[in-house]
Amino acid sequence: MPKALITTVPFGDRNRLPLELLEAAGIEYVINPLGRKLKEAELADMVTDFDVLIAGTEPITDLVMSRGSRLKLISRVGIGLDSVDLLAAEKRGIAVSYTPDAPAPAVAELTIGLMLALLRYIHVANLQLHNGHWQRHFGRRIAEVTIGIIGTGRIGARVLRRIAAFGTPRVLVNDINPDTKLVPELKLEWVGKDEIYKHADVISLHVPLTAQTKNMIRREQLLTMKKDALLINAARGGIINERDLAEVLREGHLGGAAIDVFDHEPYSGDLAGIERCLLTAHMGSMSVDCRTRMEIEATEEAVRFLTTGKLEGTVPQSEYEVQRQGL
Amino acid sequence: MPKALITTVPFGDRNRLPLELLEAAGIEYVINPLGRKLKEAELADMVTDFDVLIAGTEPITDLVMSRGSRLKLISRVGIGLDSVDLLAAEKRGIAVSYTPDAPAPAVAELTIGLMLALLRYIHVANLQLHNGHWQRHFGRRIAEVTIGIIGTGRIGARVLRRIAAFGTPRVLVNDINPDTKLVPELKLEWVGKDEIYKHADVISLHVPLTAQTKNMIRREQLLTMKKDALLINAARGGIINERDLAEVLREGHLGGAAIDVFDHEPYSGDLAGIERCLLTAHMGSMSVDCRTRMEIEATEEAVRFLTTGKLEGTVPQSEYEVQRQGL
Repeated sequence: MPKALITTVPFGDRNRLPLELLEAAGIEYVINPLGRKLKEAELADMVTDFDVLIAGTEPITDLVMSRGSRLKLISRVGIGLDSVDLLAAEKRGIAVSYTPDAPAPAVAELTIGLMLALLRYIHVANLQLHNGHWQRHFGRRIAEVTIGIIGTGRIGARVLRRIAAFGTPRVLVNDINPDTKLVPELKLEWVGKDEIYKHADVISLHVPLTAQTKNMIRREQLLTMKKDALLINAARGGIINERDLAEVLREGHLGGAAIDVFDHEPYSGDLAGIERCLLTAHMGSMSVDCRTRMEIEATEEAVRFLTTGKLEGTVPQSEYEVQRQGL
Repeated sequence: MPKALITTVPFGDRNRLPLELLEAAGIEYVINPLGRKLKEAELADMVTDFDVLIAGTEPITDLVMSRGSRLKLISRVGIGLDSVDLLAAEKRGIAVSYTPDAPAPAVAELTIGLMLALLRYIHVANLQLHNGHWQRHFGRRIAEVTIGIIGTGRIGARVLRRIAAFGTPRVLVNDINPDTKLVPELKLEWVGKDEIYKHADVISLHVPLTAQTKNMIRREQLLTMKKDALLINAARGGIINERDLAEVLREGHLGGAAIDVFDHEPYSGDLAGIERCLLTAHMGSMSVDCRTRMEIEATEEAVRFLTTGKLEGTVPQSEYEVQRQGL
């Protein structure tokens, strides 16, 4: 009987359908018993006996794969591939699938929520009022500021479309593949990242974590930003250097930041002591509909593979190239 | 030399233009020295020597007016008139102006920010992470839920237009003057308030405070709402009974609430002890652009009146009727 290890949690929580799909196909499954993101060694100990991983963002390294002697498929629930050593998988003949479209609407919507919270100091007022302190904060509307979006793929493009409903701010954008037809009503200005750091009032990141984006925003970049700039990362931990961000915020630079993703999760660290830093717990894709769609798609892929040997959501070669070239 | 008392604070804080307008017209002015919303007795003591009040939401009662023997104009910075005894002003020959359009974009945008925060538990995650606790919360997207909007005037209509950018949820609406042509892409369903209480997942209030809307939502109404309903009040304190809301939330009913306006401000009370109650400090109109526009319009009205005797933003007779009939 084929066996699937489900490492991402929660899973099947709001909608049992993914579990029912496995049961109907006669696939035995185990859900991550630790109930949190696994560390490499924990996953390596768990993976030995499974044919398929239905995976979250835990590190799926060469070591992990070396311990999974029956492992034939890694089916990622989500879009990011920074946690998967694609070259090791290729070498070992392990297929990798993902669900790149499913999380995008939920991540884009959370991003707009974080943006409005930062712009109006919703998070600051809420912390203060829960601590018995009343202060009316002056904010800005989206239409008043210059927005900078780095990464205009599935998620960044959706963020831009929603921004357009709030008026027509100046919008600076950057992407390795500029799509000059994107959201024409916003008259996007395609510029270098440095221009965004320097001129944007709100900067939101929607790039994957790769060798090129790791530590993309360090102290140096943070200090080129405006004194009251607002920074959002609902993409991947590690793109902004966490320690540098905490230092720079403590020194009084930047108007605020909203961080949903961290180097190490569950997160506890210096940012939690900074009132104007809005923190959420890797909840970008955590809307019931998107999460359910991700889980169903990743599970369907596992079932398809184990019953027919076919795949529909295979990770494209370009993603292997990114890792091969250390991009 | 004519004299203006500016009771609303902050004033002229981000943009000095309103103060410059007064100075250029040779109007002496005093800004509320207490730096917070005045109580009736405080205002009554302050008002004696002034021709014009440039007013916030403090109580401008018959008693206050009786002490303002020179008072000829109340120029409200904003839209709500619940704080002004219009009938007393009429009786005493005191004109009343307001700036009903200026705050609407800022209030609507804050409302969407509060809605997204509630739907994705942004406020809860932020409080928890600032207290060292990591929990990933499942949320819902706007497109997944049934939205209920009570009051579809200047602000409610703008909220609806912004909602349409997030998909096409089911939207229930209620207003004393239904505008059936509003935001056609949302296919609004015009229903009674009770239907909204019963069926909506997110309920947002955009009505003025009048005899009819005072305590409109009490324990009885709250208990007819869904167990996980989300409630937003960025309109006026007193429309929702604060004590009942705190009790019902403590009992475990409702998924959350976002409250920007209170019976008594500055607010401190039971809601501050409830994690899933998002609190902001009457910040609906507090975007730099809207606040500046409100202050300029209200000041221009004062200058116009004191230099030419004319008015452009006079409160319409229908508002007097609301108070006359106790509506």
